[in-house]
Amino acid sequence: MAILPPGVSAESFATAIQRLRTVVGNDWVFTSDEDVHPYRDHFSYIKNQSNELIPSAAVGPDRVEQVQDIVRIANEFRIPLYSISTGKNFAYGGPSPNVRGSVVVDLKRMDKVIEVDDKRHFAVVEPGVSYIDLYNYIQERGLKVWIDTPDPGWGSPIGNSLDHGIGYTLGFYRDHFGAHCGMEVVLPSGEVMRTGMGALPGSKSWHEYKHGFGPDPAGLFGQGNFGIVTKMGFRLMPQPEHWRTGMVRVPKRADLIALIEAVNYLSDLGLIGEPWYGSPLGALSRNQEFIDAARAFNADKLDSLAAAANLPSWEVELQFYGSAGTTKAGWDYAQEVITRKVPAARFVDGESFSVPLTPAQIQNNSAPYTSRMRRNITQGVPGLGVWYQTTRTDNNPNNWNETHIGLFSLVGRSGEAVMQAQKDFYEIAQIVGLPVTMPGITSTPVNWYQHAFLMGSGFAAAGDNTPEGKLKATKVLRRILEENAKRGYGDYRAPPILQDDVADQYSFNNHVLHRFNETLKNAIDPNGILSPGRAGIWPVAYSSLRGSLRK
Amino acid sequence: MAILPPGVSAESFATAIQRLRTVVGNDWVFTSDEDVHPYRDHFSYIKNQSNELIPSAAVGPDRVEQVQDIVRIANEFRIPLYSISTGKNFAYGGPSPNVRGSVVVDLKRMDKVIEVDDKRHFAVVEPGVSYIDLYNYIQERGLKVWIDTPDPGWGSPIGNSLDHGIGYTLGFYRDHFGAHCGMEVVLPSGEVMRTGMGALPGSKSWHEYKHGFGPDPAGLFGQGNFGIVTKMGFRLMPQPEHWRTGMVRVPKRADLIALIEAVNYLSDLGLIGEPWYGSPLGALSRNQEFIDAARAFNADKLDSLAAAANLPSWEVELQFYGSAGTTKAGWDYAQEVITRKVPAARFVDGESFSVPLTPAQIQNNSAPYTSRMRRNITQGVPGLGVWYQTTRTDNNPNNWNETHIGLFSLVGRSGEAVMQAQKDFYEIAQIVGLPVTMPGITSTPVNWYQHAFLMGSGFAAAGDNTPEGKLKATKVLRRILEENAKRGYGDYRAPPILQDDVADQYSFNNHVLHRFNETLKNAIDPNGILSPGRAGIWPVAYSSLRGSLRK
Repeated sequence: MAILPPGVSAESFATAIQRLRTVVGNDWVFTSDEDVHPYRDHFSYIKNQSNELIPSAAVGPDRVEQVQDIVRIANEFRIPLYSISTGKNFAYGGPSPNVRGSVVVDLKRMDKVIEVDDKRHFAVVEPGVSYIDLYNYIQERGLKVWIDTPDPGWGSPIGNSLDHGIGYTLGFYRDHFGAHCGMEVVLPSGEVMRTGMGALPGSKSWHEYKHGFGPDPAGLFGQGNFGIVTKMGFRLMPQPEHWRTGMVRVPKRADLIALIEAVNYLSDLGLIGEPWYGSPLGALSRNQEFIDAARAFNADKLDSLAAAANLPSWEVELQFYGSAGTTKAGWDYAQEVITRKVPAARFVDGESFSVPLTPAQIQNNSAPYTSRMRRNITQGVPGLGVWYQTTRTDNNPNNWNETHIGLFSLVGRSGEAVMQAQKDFYEIAQIVGLPVTMPGITSTPVNWYQHAFLMGSGFAAAGDNTPEGKLKATKVLRRILEENAKRGYGDYRAPPILQDDVADQYSFNNHVLHRFNETLKNAIDPNGILSPGRAGIWPVAYSSLRGSLRK
Repeated sequence: MAILPPGVSAESFATAIQRLRTVVGNDWVFTSDEDVHPYRDHFSYIKNQSNELIPSAAVGPDRVEQVQDIVRIANEFRIPLYSISTGKNFAYGGPSPNVRGSVVVDLKRMDKVIEVDDKRHFAVVEPGVSYIDLYNYIQERGLKVWIDTPDPGWGSPIGNSLDHGIGYTLGFYRDHFGAHCGMEVVLPSGEVMRTGMGALPGSKSWHEYKHGFGPDPAGLFGQGNFGIVTKMGFRLMPQPEHWRTGMVRVPKRADLIALIEAVNYLSDLGLIGEPWYGSPLGALSRNQEFIDAARAFNADKLDSLAAAANLPSWEVELQFYGSAGTTKAGWDYAQEVITRKVPAARFVDGESFSVPLTPAQIQNNSAPYTSRMRRNITQGVPGLGVWYQTTRTDNNPNNWNETHIGLFSLVGRSGEAVMQAQKDFYEIAQIVGLPVTMPGITSTPVNWYQHAFLMGSGFAAAGDNTPEGKLKATKVLRRILEENAKRGYGDYRAPPILQDDVADQYSFNNHVLHRFNETLKNAIDPNGILSPGRAGIWPVAYSSLRGSLRK
């Protein structure tokens, strides 16, 4: 046990570990290097450095009472905890804590699906339940609900939603934190609290009405360190009878403005699921004339090159959930609305399936344009396809040393804002010295959140996997975050090594929101033992560590 | 100035008032009995009693800097403030504070519509803007968005949403607090904070993405006393091109179960707006045979009486927003889904209008079954019709002494839960001694919140308007709240005189949620000056007043 929690002696720590063993049993306290190995972030930019965020130990409770006891022991011995659920959390720090030497509270053993209601449309799960588990539970029982899954299905609905993760079906369900309904939380004091109607013993609507009575602190548990969530309810989409897609293509660069307006209209009336934007002009990315026009953001030239190559400038895939009739009416109407705004728009019918899908329909990849992986997640079928696709920046699945972090920033939900962001992110890439062959004139927003756009603002692969190379990549990412903030772009999520930096972007009125949250944190966690440093929230006991990873 | 804030001397208060005058000007500090009169709750059950919640004064700032100064002065002189926006807040205490002698901060003068975006579909307003103001602003400019208005249009979108108020259009928009996006708040310290992306200076998506980064305290400002909200963004529904309704009727009492399941399915796929349940059997409420069957909850007998009278047991009005084609497809599909579950269901086409509506369509009352007032609010047109309709329990508009409070409880979103609640509320009415001619076997839930049902669990009109009669009515309401909680029913909203009682319903684990919220409150408002007692949250400085109205 070479690594200790900050300020804790080896003797004291040994006593604490012994106490933890009495709570969860010998088998579920991990202290050897070998046992702690899985709790390291093997993609970390600071892997094997003296400041790598390695836990001192991990503990695996199997019920809420054990979590309470663990929290009480941590208070007694002043040991920082870091709670995780299930899944891998790739790109966001894996299972590693914000404070080196923390004890990881691994909630995987708490893996009960407590309830799925396919009449009132909700599920209640423990943290160790994965999207795949929940999907299987539903399929085995023939329940008529769909889940809204993120790309990798091994993740936890609780963990994902607490990290403000997203999915791909109807707007309301895609915001996984927004779609939560009712939590059970172990507080830093060790007490168990329930939010919303769960605060009313015997309530008949815990997972239907989340505001409850009076102030609702639930938002503090998202990307936060105010408690360990041990149970959570989620709205589920009723299984529709039909699923249909359609592809829309528009010729000119400036058409993006009207296209987005039309799609916003359809989306905000609830007539479509997640729209998926793209630009087929990526096909010209090795054409020097195109690259030159892109660098100059010369819309006329780009349009003429697109026309010459017979390529549309933009496309968007739309999805419809309902019956054969409503989805057809929706797609017809979408074409009408878009044509009115962009008369030159072209449309391609996509797939059109009765639900439940057959296994062959789930597996089949004959869609005119949609990848199977993407199709499945829009159908609420979890998988692991993305893991291969996006965790390897060099497309080499054997390169286990590859490090990467993706940054996604909020941009305005309009064509003007998207095209401005393309320019801004290009400028930033040049400022920070990223190799840029072509500015992001083909980059498009993701509409994961129904009412907001996110755009990739920096995807730094170290390339050079030496410690120096990784340090350099980290510095580049920090510069990107600073430059983003100067231009009004904020990131929605980050791994521990960048959380102080993202928190610093949100600096209005001398960081008042951040200070307010830290005041609340200190009030309910006086010893600062729950995930200190998470999202840049540093309790007094560990505040000397703020920004320490920047060195 | 007969009334002073608790623990504040007349001299000190006079000095504070003088300081307030220097902030907002002489004209906007009200201290005379006459000037304070409008800030009393004239429907109060304790009107003219020694504990009536009369403010000591009121102050009317016209900008956020003045609000900050007022808060700083209140801290200096330890004066409790109570902030209100605009509208009347009938049934929920009007403008009167939780603590007698508070200074009301009346935000009506802050009445700017800051922004309405009809491409990205949001509005940003100040507290003094009413739904009618916002509607007029939109109409005057021909903007293509609808608002979601509560019944009385004179209310404030900010005030209403902070009280967890509701509306009548598409599901997402009906939850006014849920549909908020970004706040500006004056904290008890006097600092100005912005939530979500507003914490990022120059953010391009403040009113599109509300989670921001890290823990989100926004929920604390709903039904809370953690700050004075001075600006707030709301999602708006894009103006649809068509609006259509349809009526569904089912014959038997037990059909409610399948009917609700079908409507839940349609609602949770976003295919309908607010469904409006009712029971035409109210027509039999003077039929003794029916009353006897109702008292026995004898479903067979009730069904045969309904059949004999040729009346359906239940009905639900559905609404569709979109195009002529999508709303037609939606209504056709609704009939298909419902018929599959209740073959005996009958359907009546309702109105079907192109949007924008003509003034004649808004005024006309030729709908086959919908009242004009109800129709207009489902079309996003604010009005004042409800004020006459529901504030007079005796239907006598000249009876200004009438007092009333309506209680609404969360019940499960199923037919079984609704019918159980009818029995429970009948039993409770008998226990507390309310005059009950017929149990609520015809009472139906409101589906204001998309995923939850509320049912009236007690509507106590004093009837006897003497002080003794009012005291008795208050005691009845308190008993109802206790009995509700015993059976798992919690209320979502209450006037100040019942807020401690509703807060007590939420008692899980020795009131841990309540204690948690009070710990947070004390941390950010050490002098307890912001709306102490609101929603039962009593800061230390005023904790001796907890429950004092129960005497």
